[in-house]
Amino acid sequence: MSDDATEATAADSAHDDREFVVVVVEPETPGNVGTIARAMKNFGLADLKLVDPPEIDRDSEAYGFAGHAREDVLPNADTVALEEVVENYHTVGTTAITGEDARRHVRFPFKTPAELRESLATVDTDTALVFGREGTGLNNEELAQLDELVSVPANPEYPVMNLGQAATVTLYELRSLFLDEYQLPDVEHERAAEPEIERFYEQFGAFLEEAESRDHKRERSERLIRRLVGRAHPTSKEVTTLTGVFRRATDLMEHADHGDRERDDEPRAR
Amino acid sequence: MSDDATEATAADSAHDDREFVVVVVEPETPGNVGTIARAMKNFGLADLKLVDPPEIDRDSEAYGFAGHAREDVLPNADTVALEEVVENYHTVGTTAITGEDARRHVRFPFKTPAELRESLATVDTDTALVFGREGTGLNNEELAQLDELVSVPANPEYPVMNLGQAATVTLYELRSLFLDEYQLPDVEHERAAEPEIERFYEQFGAFLEEAESRDHKRERSERLIRRLVGRAHPTSKEVTTLTGVFRRATDLMEHADHGDRERDDEPRAR
Repeated sequence: MSDDATEATAADSAHDDREFVVVVVEPETPGNVGTIARAMKNFGLADLKLVDPPEIDRDSEAYGFAGHAREDVLPNADTVALEEVVENYHTVGTTAITGEDARRHVRFPFKTPAELRESLATVDTDTALVFGREGTGLNNEELAQLDELVSVPANPEYPVMNLGQAATVTLYELRSLFLDEYQLPDVEHERAAEPEIERFYEQFGAFLEEAESRDHKRERSERLIRRLVGRAHPTSKEVTTLTGVFRRATDLMEHADHGDRERDDEPRAR
Repeated sequence: MSDDATEATAADSAHDDREFVVVVVEPETPGNVGTIARAMKNFGLADLKLVDPPEIDRDSEAYGFAGHAREDVLPNADTVALEEVVENYHTVGTTAITGEDARRHVRFPFKTPAELRESLATVDTDTALVFGREGTGLNNEELAQLDELVSVPANPEYPVMNLGQAATVTLYELRSLFLDEYQLPDVEHERAAEPEIERFYEQFGAFLEEAESRDHKRERSERLIRRLVGRAHPTSKEVTTLTGVFRRATDLMEHADHGDRERDDEPRAR
């Protein structure tokens, strides 16, 4: 991607003035810090803050797992105290185990990542997403300081995700808060033009004139191909390729000298 | 969770007769296989198939990263050939780099994971989600054998996700195809009963009678608290706790012997 395009993305952003940071409290293994840094870069975040982290050197798993985030997110990570984060950001804690209901208030109420995205979309605030240590997550004392909670919906028989995986899913689900564009091309208009598709149906009709002598079967097949191709939203390449295939097949059948053609009494369209 | 609840979940499933399997082609490191196994278990899948995998023994990173999936998903993984998968399943390949448009047809068209979920929701077919090797993903020859493609929307400047993270996001997004329930309690009806909330507003009104002598300020504060608490959808615990707090504060103010009260000419409600 060119520098120009990158600048355009940043300039177009509706969220330029909002800051989103990721905070990891006492990560036990450098590897998960690298995984989180990579997910941040994949979904458009850059500012990583670590509370009481392990040593993270250039030879550690953190750098091994960070992909291209080793170039910026990881070396620029700050070490902070949770209290500083609480003072300066709207804080969202993450937890796999929520309160069952309103009686256990430290882990309740909570939002799903999708609900969090919806609720943050229209709020002008700097937000910190806070993840806890691998083994036990955020403890109750930490959770009590945070403004709201988010929890990834998962298998009731085994809802506890790995730290790096939970962060990846959460950042993926929030991506529209951080990114205005994705690497995927816009496919809204990639369905072939209708005249191209109609030309394919005409060619297929001509093909059937050669291949199927019985009127009712031919009509049924024409309807069938129209339904099948229509709902597949064919691309231009697909319909023009198939139109060519059926044109050649039709030509071959027209010029084939096969005697059994004579049993067919119907006049031919071509 | 009790065994009964587990059985109920399985019995209620709308998708009991559809099979979903995960296939990893030539994973280079056991660690990613473990990560994928864990994500499978987190989101309700069990059947893992590996094409030409590395050796995966009990002491490997695969078992280290698999969490509880080390008990079932990982030891039960099959080794298969991609051709067997293509023969027996509707195959969905995953790729970070898609075709730009319809001219490059091996990686185009594609769906996002959310679009894939929608399209598979109403289709009765056994489906294989096929992931490629860490470094280079699925090659063009492999992609050409598969029925459709899925790609995770990500940062145009760095869309390439780690294999385990890409699989985690994809399985997360498809989770409603595999799971009928999540660990999260149903919070639809957790907003406190309206009479409880009204009782809180009444108590807050009585509190204001003591705390704010000016009518227009009191009315403004009453409106404000109604808007604030109302949109926060308070739980029963929240409103009853706060009602108690304001009742005690009101009582203390009522019984306080403070002389400056005399400057207030208004009659008091209580």
